[in-house]
Amino acid sequence: MKLEKLVGERFKERPSDCVVDSHALMVRGGYMKYVANGIFSSYMPLKRITRKIENILREEMDAIDGQEVSFPVVMPASIWQESGRYDSIGKELVRFNDRSGSPVVLGMTHEEAAVQLVREYGQTYMKYPFMIYQIQTKFRDEARPRSGLIRVREFTMKDAYSFHTSQEDLEQYYAKCHKAYERIFARAGIPEVISIASDSGMMGGSISHEFMLLTDIGEDSIVICNQCDYRANMEATPNVVDYVRTAESKALEKVATPGKQTIEEVSAFLGVEAKDTCKAVVYQQNKDDKYVVLFLRGDYDVNETKLTNYLGCDVHPATITDDCGLVAGFIGPVGITDNCTVLYDNTLKGVNNLVCGANENEYHMTGLDFDRDLPSAEFHDFAKVKEGSICPKCGKHALTVSRGIEVGNIFQLGTKYTKSMNMTYTDSEGNILNPIMGCYGIGVGRLAASICEAHHDDYGPIWPIAIAPWQVHICAVRADDSEVKAYADNLYNTLTEKGIEVIYDDRNVSAGVMFSDADLLGVPFRVVVSPRNMKGGIVEIASRDKSLKTSATLDTAVDEITALVKNAFQQN
Amino acid sequence: MKLEKLVGERFKERPSDCVVDSHALMVRGGYMKYVANGIFSSYMPLKRITRKIENILREEMDAIDGQEVSFPVVMPASIWQESGRYDSIGKELVRFNDRSGSPVVLGMTHEEAAVQLVREYGQTYMKYPFMIYQIQTKFRDEARPRSGLIRVREFTMKDAYSFHTSQEDLEQYYAKCHKAYERIFARAGIPEVISIASDSGMMGGSISHEFMLLTDIGEDSIVICNQCDYRANMEATPNVVDYVRTAESKALEKVATPGKQTIEEVSAFLGVEAKDTCKAVVYQQNKDDKYVVLFLRGDYDVNETKLTNYLGCDVHPATITDDCGLVAGFIGPVGITDNCTVLYDNTLKGVNNLVCGANENEYHMTGLDFDRDLPSAEFHDFAKVKEGSICPKCGKHALTVSRGIEVGNIFQLGTKYTKSMNMTYTDSEGNILNPIMGCYGIGVGRLAASICEAHHDDYGPIWPIAIAPWQVHICAVRADDSEVKAYADNLYNTLTEKGIEVIYDDRNVSAGVMFSDADLLGVPFRVVVSPRNMKGGIVEIASRDKSLKTSATLDTAVDEITALVKNAFQQN
Repeated sequence: MKLEKLVGERFKERPSDCVVDSHALMVRGGYMKYVANGIFSSYMPLKRITRKIENILREEMDAIDGQEVSFPVVMPASIWQESGRYDSIGKELVRFNDRSGSPVVLGMTHEEAAVQLVREYGQTYMKYPFMIYQIQTKFRDEARPRSGLIRVREFTMKDAYSFHTSQEDLEQYYAKCHKAYERIFARAGIPEVISIASDSGMMGGSISHEFMLLTDIGEDSIVICNQCDYRANMEATPNVVDYVRTAESKALEKVATPGKQTIEEVSAFLGVEAKDTCKAVVYQQNKDDKYVVLFLRGDYDVNETKLTNYLGCDVHPATITDDCGLVAGFIGPVGITDNCTVLYDNTLKGVNNLVCGANENEYHMTGLDFDRDLPSAEFHDFAKVKEGSICPKCGKHALTVSRGIEVGNIFQLGTKYTKSMNMTYTDSEGNILNPIMGCYGIGVGRLAASICEAHHDDYGPIWPIAIAPWQVHICAVRADDSEVKAYADNLYNTLTEKGIEVIYDDRNVSAGVMFSDADLLGVPFRVVVSPRNMKGGIVEIASRDKSLKTSATLDTAVDEITALVKNAFQQN
Repeated sequence: MKLEKLVGERFKERPSDCVVDSHALMVRGGYMKYVANGIFSSYMPLKRITRKIENILREEMDAIDGQEVSFPVVMPASIWQESGRYDSIGKELVRFNDRSGSPVVLGMTHEEAAVQLVREYGQTYMKYPFMIYQIQTKFRDEARPRSGLIRVREFTMKDAYSFHTSQEDLEQYYAKCHKAYERIFARAGIPEVISIASDSGMMGGSISHEFMLLTDIGEDSIVICNQCDYRANMEATPNVVDYVRTAESKALEKVATPGKQTIEEVSAFLGVEAKDTCKAVVYQQNKDDKYVVLFLRGDYDVNETKLTNYLGCDVHPATITDDCGLVAGFIGPVGITDNCTVLYDNTLKGVNNLVCGANENEYHMTGLDFDRDLPSAEFHDFAKVKEGSICPKCGKHALTVSRGIEVGNIFQLGTKYTKSMNMTYTDSEGNILNPIMGCYGIGVGRLAASICEAHHDDYGPIWPIAIAPWQVHICAVRADDSEVKAYADNLYNTLTEKGIEVIYDDRNVSAGVMFSDADLLGVPFRVVVSPRNMKGGIVEIASRDKSLKTSATLDTAVDEITALVKNAFQQN
């Protein structure tokens, strides 16, 4: 491919709307173009990258006996009604009526379609286990798409669905798929991806893992124990609490706290620490707007995933009205209105001498003792763990919190879909049972962007060889020099004939423009042919990651470049 | 791949809802499954076929300097408003609002997206020409999906868009793409596809061609001259008329024709032929329901494409109301109401002694002479040609009419989209101009089904080697025989290691079941290992198209099968 012919624009300035580096570099490098919020077109370099990623996904899915199929993008609402998700999923599921008035949805995941495809096939135990997968466009109407290809509305995903007749069989396959995922990320150039326990969310099922690339720009909080192998998504990490009752309980007293509403204001005013306060966080249930008041110790934050899992429905931050019985800024557990659901976090269990709201404007209470003042309170885990929290596995104060991008996930779904959609099989003894499912996803574009996040410098992406748009980038500096041009043309043709993917820049532009374009395209090996090099009888060869800078004689260049590429693939 | 593990059901009975053979065989063979009207999921055999077709498309598009990109499925309405098609296309364009209330569409074609992607890139003549293409899911909300994969609502399409600075350059590229299409259909196993001139329809532009596979189940009428090389879609074929005035004009007279409304009834009643009548066909314009009365000679039918092109809007068959001034069944050109658009077809020009409606219930006229009675009538071409009509190229009565499936199309679009979407470039003299576009489509699923239509027997598809889901099908008849099993296992492994794609049936089922499944999978070469064959020291080898039936010794089987496969590819 001649660079001169490559459709797409490359430029130096970081676009002002790009927050993360991968987004900025992929816009600057002519990889992608904005079409609408969270919707992009891809130019050839990105398409070549994603096709290589797709081929890796396909090979690894085939290697664990996956069968490639395809499900529709547009699906009848009926199968989503069967599973119950037509009603339970929010606005991110696009619903509309087709021309005949039938309700349809755009696929954001395909558990329903997978069950629909195989429920007649899988009627006897002898057909099991099997796994089907597809690589297909999905649409998820995200409220806040962001970070370029990291969180979009339209995306290509590899999604796989396995079907089993026992939990043991699912677990075996799940472990096999876990290994396949490790191979996929290693082959794609990010072996540093880790798997962590996760919350299953809307997918259902119990055990699930996310594959995380640790990076400061990640949207997820990842909890890692530095004393044992515990790793989990913040959403799924139990908060283990030390018992922190102080020796003597003071009396419960009402104190004036004029204008002091936040934990910071109140604790500063009363001269106590945040951990000596009982904080109220108020939500409303999405389904009926009922108020939910959650009390937790002032130095903890709410883990909303735990809250919604407990309630069994989604919530939103409350709008506190004048007539709801709650006194904004002064809410406390003693004497609170009956007009709401009151929940207590484990961090408050047995604690005494706390400051809390008095349910009266401009007043708080001091000396709150949960054992004494609220003996019938029930405590559950609703809080986020913090840096230094107790590890739920080894029990040491050793948890650390990092940020990460989720580049893949695997779920043990159980019978959630087969039961609701009435997929059954007959076992060897004639019993009629629901098969057990697993599902396994990887977003192709997000993976490409994550690799770019993990491997780039200020000048552009540094693509790993297995997914790079091309393997060798030839810069013919001064292509108007006939000797340079003849040699570079021949080098381009010879390498191409050897099956190496080459992008060839023979434009009449300065070396500076050539090199900055090469940096943006991020091809692993750059070869510079120039009048000075020709005089010296050499070409310069450098790797994009700067680990290699060498030269080869004009005669040996083809062999040396070929060997470098081959070697890079072997190390991959 | 072991057949035992292949997900999907195969069965003998032709499903009652399948009208065409390809649909019936691909359902019976476990290739596809109905999800909703015009929406299907694919099982692995079909996915393997379509991926091979996609690879052929990709190779041939790359060979004519195409750059693979991707456009979104969900697009903002804004770019379709720019081109004007947001309003001009009917209900087949799916329109809905996203969660933020912004109007979006589902891509049924991507001219707008292509212009949006390159309009900043293509600002100088030096960037031209270039071609971009994608292979992507599309959705077209067809009113009447039918014939399995021939006419669906959701489909995968290869769509390509080229951009040029002169008509000559477009024409050169268009010819190059025409040749690429011929190679594609030949490689996919249907070299018999012909290209014909077509009507450009909603795409705009003037010159366009359709690639047609001739078959009785085709939806298109194709006109072919048996005396010259003229070939065109019926929609685009001019109707050349012989002048048929008879010697003497009789007087115009009103005759009672009680209860005789159709051309058949009236001509039988009055003892004349259909060609001696003047037929009225009544439509209403979609945009305003205004009546359009088209008169043509009684032995011709209306070509609605010509009519809508003339009117510049779509029409539908009229509902004739009591107060509209038209007398259903008795409409004639003399004294017709002013309340409608009246059009005359060329078949009536100068004709005399015709029977026509009298615009009065139960009455017709005889002796109509267009020259005498309607001297100011203007005549245009609105009629369909017929078997034996005059060829517009060679002038001989030599037109034949066949049926065909459109398996591809190419259009010279001109500046329709670049003008409306304000894409410009500066030429070498500083002029600002709109680039000229071409576009080029092939539907992947329809092509697969068309190949099946062209190549099948009563028992299943006969897939050409280049797109067959597998190349060799091994049937181990009596796999419970340890000698059979050992040999067949080894044959399967050895052929697979040699890179041949093998489906291996070692189930404990009868030879009959094995062979009927093999017929349904349509793999080019079948190898039978059985106790009898083992005793004879041979395997049987047969081709699915029945052109070959041979045997090989156990020692030479691998080499002979490998040679057969290689040879089949070479002949492809």
